[in-house]
Amino acid sequence: MAARGAPQAVYVRIANALRGQIESGQLEPGQQLPTEHALGAEYEVARATVRQALTLLKNEGLIIPARPRGYFVRKIRRSIYRPQAEFRPRPHFAEMDQWMEEQAEDGREPSQTINVEIVNPPHEIANRLGLKPDEMTVVRRRIRYLDGEPFNANDSYFPLSLVSTSEIMVPHDIQRGANEVLAELGARQVRAIDEIEVRMPTPTEATQLDLGPGTPVAVIRSTGYTADDRPVRAVVTVLPGTKHVIVFERDRLDPDD
Amino acid sequence: MAARGAPQAVYVRIANALRGQIESGQLEPGQQLPTEHALGAEYEVARATVRQALTLLKNEGLIIPARPRGYFVRKIRRSIYRPQAEFRPRPHFAEMDQWMEEQAEDGREPSQTINVEIVNPPHEIANRLGLKPDEMTVVRRRIRYLDGEPFNANDSYFPLSLVSTSEIMVPHDIQRGANEVLAELGARQVRAIDEIEVRMPTPTEATQLDLGPGTPVAVIRSTGYTADDRPVRAVVTVLPGTKHVIVFERDRLDPDD
Repeated sequence: MAARGAPQAVYVRIANALRGQIESGQLEPGQQLPTEHALGAEYEVARATVRQALTLLKNEGLIIPARPRGYFVRKIRRSIYRPQAEFRPRPHFAEMDQWMEEQAEDGREPSQTINVEIVNPPHEIANRLGLKPDEMTVVRRRIRYLDGEPFNANDSYFPLSLVSTSEIMVPHDIQRGANEVLAELGARQVRAIDEIEVRMPTPTEATQLDLGPGTPVAVIRSTGYTADDRPVRAVVTVLPGTKHVIVFERDRLDPDD
Repeated sequence: MAARGAPQAVYVRIANALRGQIESGQLEPGQQLPTEHALGAEYEVARATVRQALTLLKNEGLIIPARPRGYFVRKIRRSIYRPQAEFRPRPHFAEMDQWMEEQAEDGREPSQTINVEIVNPPHEIANRLGLKPDEMTVVRRRIRYLDGEPFNANDSYFPLSLVSTSEIMVPHDIQRGANEVLAELGARQVRAIDEIEVRMPTPTEATQLDLGPGTPVAVIRSTGYTADDRPVRAVVTVLPGTKHVIVFERDRLDPDD
């Protein structure tokens, strides 16, 4: 972190100039940047200095390396991710209808992979589900794709004792949704807590979701509860920051509060 | 992005080994890493290779450079950030009471800086507030600190015509809250939409919030509406991912839905 007011290193000044061109649209999303050689000539600096500037912008997620052709301005397109959709299929607020329609119209082809495993859950999951030591869970791991590109990852954990004889064990899509299966098992969720953490991806996540440099993720940990306050589902969703905007609607509980 | 199954570069293997030690707690938060020299000897590689491994971990936000003493395992501590607090001072769900108590007990000293400006708002703000071209806004810019360290940044925009004669114009803390002032002006907010974007910080944000490498931010854009659906406040909050976890409570609107 540079001290405030300190003179900026040359590579920072070059990065600032290029960032400005990206922000103003002079360099457009998807456009190729000038070569290291050309930038070196333009700013009258060594190629190593240009490379430092480009690395900075790469780690900010603004440009993407595409060897051997150099760097391209990153195209960012975020889709609405609405955790409340689980309990409210349609938005409750009129402002969101138009956004949702725009989403629906964009016609990309969704697909997913599903794996089902029986695991001793990580501590954070056992905790949220209130499990006894050594109590096992079923986890349905899904990776969702749009037009063949990884879009997000979603691991849903259920107590094994609750779901062991149900369709949740089958590694196929459950058309009516796992929540409906829970309801049939007498464990309908009526509320949930979402905890959103923001961090850089693990190498496994970066590979699974094909994340370039400078691409943070939002990790949503959702715990679902029945009407009698029993946690019955814990979901970990990993959303690449470049592909999603997470949206919540929020009401004043009591207008005279 | 490495092709799946491709042999890993040596520096990636070293980074993986160190990451494993951090995740297992063998290297603890705040602990100093071995020197480049020592790591070079341990893994029998050149110092440049060690440096590549350390840069990778730095950009993942796992280690912090502290010249000239080398690298330290990052201490991460996240506080609960609850957007719903605006309309529900206390959590609605029993599970959250304990968390909130733990927060309250930790006794760090909060402070803030407040600047008030009259600005032609950015496009995204004018849009959300439904302003006419050239309609001005008042923005209250706050940076919040805990024990003197920057914690988050919060810019609240209001239509100038609505608030020009109110306390919102004064660059001091409004004890009863700006929302209460809006209510007194006949513009009580009863609902809001939160849009959460996850990205790397801009250089300005990194300086303001003193963010180290590999520290993404959550940007929450909140638009508040009155009972007659008029947008009266647009807030942009920038939360360092290492310092916050954003929490929402979510209910099934109709239990028989």
